[in-house]
Amino acid sequence: MASRILVYEVGPRDGLQNEARALATAEKLELIRALAGAGLARIEATSFVSPRWIPQLGDAAEVVEGLPAVPGTSYVVLVPNARGLARLVESLDRVGPGRPPVEAAVFLSASETHNKKNVNKTIDETFRAFDEVVGPARQKGLRVRGYVSTAWGCPYEGRVDARKVAAMAERLLALGCYQVSLGDTIGVGTPGQTREILGLLLGKARPEQIAMHMHDTRGTALANVLAGLEAGVGTFDSAIGGLGGCPYAPGASGNLATEDLVYMLHGMGYETGISFDRLVAAGELAQRLVGRPLPGRALQAELSARVVREAR
Amino acid sequence: MASRILVYEVGPRDGLQNEARALATAEKLELIRALAGAGLARIEATSFVSPRWIPQLGDAAEVVEGLPAVPGTSYVVLVPNARGLARLVESLDRVGPGRPPVEAAVFLSASETHNKKNVNKTIDETFRAFDEVVGPARQKGLRVRGYVSTAWGCPYEGRVDARKVAAMAERLLALGCYQVSLGDTIGVGTPGQTREILGLLLGKARPEQIAMHMHDTRGTALANVLAGLEAGVGTFDSAIGGLGGCPYAPGASGNLATEDLVYMLHGMGYETGISFDRLVAAGELAQRLVGRPLPGRALQAELSARVVREAR
Repeated sequence: MASRILVYEVGPRDGLQNEARALATAEKLELIRALAGAGLARIEATSFVSPRWIPQLGDAAEVVEGLPAVPGTSYVVLVPNARGLARLVESLDRVGPGRPPVEAAVFLSASETHNKKNVNKTIDETFRAFDEVVGPARQKGLRVRGYVSTAWGCPYEGRVDARKVAAMAERLLALGCYQVSLGDTIGVGTPGQTREILGLLLGKARPEQIAMHMHDTRGTALANVLAGLEAGVGTFDSAIGGLGGCPYAPGASGNLATEDLVYMLHGMGYETGISFDRLVAAGELAQRLVGRPLPGRALQAELSARVVREAR
Repeated sequence: MASRILVYEVGPRDGLQNEARALATAEKLELIRALAGAGLARIEATSFVSPRWIPQLGDAAEVVEGLPAVPGTSYVVLVPNARGLARLVESLDRVGPGRPPVEAAVFLSASETHNKKNVNKTIDETFRAFDEVVGPARQKGLRVRGYVSTAWGCPYEGRVDARKVAAMAERLLALGCYQVSLGDTIGVGTPGQTREILGLLLGKARPEQIAMHMHDTRGTALANVLAGLEAGVGTFDSAIGGLGGCPYAPGASGNLATEDLVYMLHGMGYETGISFDRLVAAGELAQRLVGRPLPGRALQAELSARVVREAR
C-alpha cells in the first residue's frame, strides 16, 4: 500500500462551476493561493469550455494567467477540444517561461445520455475529438489526464456496467493520458461496486494510472476511498469544503470534501504533504467566497469545535 | 462475512435526547412505529435516567408502556442503575404478557473524564453499579447490552488506548452482557484505529458480541463501518436521519444516519430486512417532528431527487 497519497483538489473548477453566482477572478485566485499554501500538490484551476455553456468559467484565460507559482504545486486545466487546447496554450505562452507547471485534462461520461447532455456528443464522437487534444497537448509538453464521469451510475441510465467503464479508461490510457480519474458523479457508489470496477481495471492498468473522484451524496465517499486504498489506488479527487453540491438540492452534497479525505488519510498514517489547519482555513475562505455554509463534515466539525472552545 | 447485518436504530433515544425541545410521547411513539414498520429489528426506545438530568427522556415509562408490538422488532431501554432497572420492570409488568420483546442496556465511557461528566461516577464505580443491574436484569429474563462510549477518542482526553477499550468490552461481556457496542461518540475514528480496536477485541470475543456505533462528524462513519464489516462485525448502530447532532453545532453531524448505513449495506448486497423507501419516509417524519432538516446524506439526496423529479 502506498504510504503517500496524492490529493487532487477540484474545488476551483468542478466546485465553483456549479455555483449560481460566478466568483470574481481575483476571488478564485485567492482560493487557489490558499489551497496551494495548504500544501495541495495538484489543483484543478479552470476549464476552457465555451462561456455560453458555463459562464462561471468564462475567465479561464485570466485564471490560468494569474496562477501563483508555489513550490510543489501544479495545476490542471480542462480542455474539451482543440479550440480549448489552443486557448490554454495561448495563455501559457503569454505567461512565458516563469509559469507554474500546468497539465491538461479531457473528460467524458461513461453513459451515453449523460455524455450527450454534458458535451453534446456521443461517446465515440467525444473520443474522436480527443485525438485532436491528447496527442497535440503532449507535443506541447503538457501531460494529459482523462476523466470518466458517471462511472458508478448515471442519473438517466442507472447503474453503469463496470466492463464499459474499464474499457473506456483503457482507451483513454491508450490515447496517451497518464492517468484516468473515475468519477461517481451522482454519489451512488458502494464499496462492492468499487472493488468490481477497480478489479477489472487494475488487471490492465498500473495503480498510479487510476484515480478516484467520489461524491458524498449518500455518505459513502470515504468508504469507497477505503476500498480504493485497499486496491492500491493512490490518487483521490476532492473539493475544498465539499464545494460543488447539486444546484437543485440545497441540502444535498456533491464532491467529497478535501478536509474529510485528508482527515481520514492522516488518521490512517498516510502522508499527503497537506497542513490540515491550513486546509480548514482554505475551507473557511471558500465558505466566505460563496456566501453559505459548505457541506464538508470535518470543516463544520472544526468550526463548531472552535465555537465550543470560545464559549467556554 | 455475514450476509445479514443487524441495523440497530438509536434515534428515538440517543437522537432525541439531544434535541432542545422534548417531543411529546405520542410523537416519539409515532416515530417508533414508523421505524418498526420500515423493518428495523432493534430500536432503542428510551432510557430510565433521572428526568432532572435529561428532561427529554422524562416520559420513559409512558414510552415503554406504549411500545407497539410489531413482528420482528424488539426494543432496547437504557437502565443506568438498579433504580432504572426497577422502573423498567415495573413498566413491563404494567403492560403484561402481551408486551413486545424488550432488552436492557447499560453504558459507560472509555475515558474517565467523559464518564464522570456523563454519569457522575468513576469507571470503577460505574462497573460496580452494573453489578446491581446486569445480573438482576437477566434474572428477570431481560438480555443486557453494554455500551462503551468515547472508544475512539474523548473530547477531554483525546485518543483512547485500544487496549483499554478492549479490556472494558471484555469486562462487560464477563459481567453478562450479550453484546458490547463500541461508540465513536465524537466521530474522530479512522479505519486504521478501528482495525486496531477490533483486532484486539476479536481475539477474545466472538464477532456477534461486538457492535459498532459510529458518528459521522468528519464523514468517516461508513469507512469505519466498512472496516468493521471486513473484520466480521455484523451489528451497527445508527440513527434515523442522523438524529442526535451536537446541540452546540448546528452544521455538525452526530450519529451515522440509518439511511446512509442501509444504502451502503444494500448496495453491497447485505440483507437487513429493511425497506429503504419506508426508512426514508421515517426520516421525513423525524424531520417533521424535530422541525428542521436532518444531516443524513441519503435522506437529503432522496428528498432532493424528489424535488428534481417534480420540477420536470
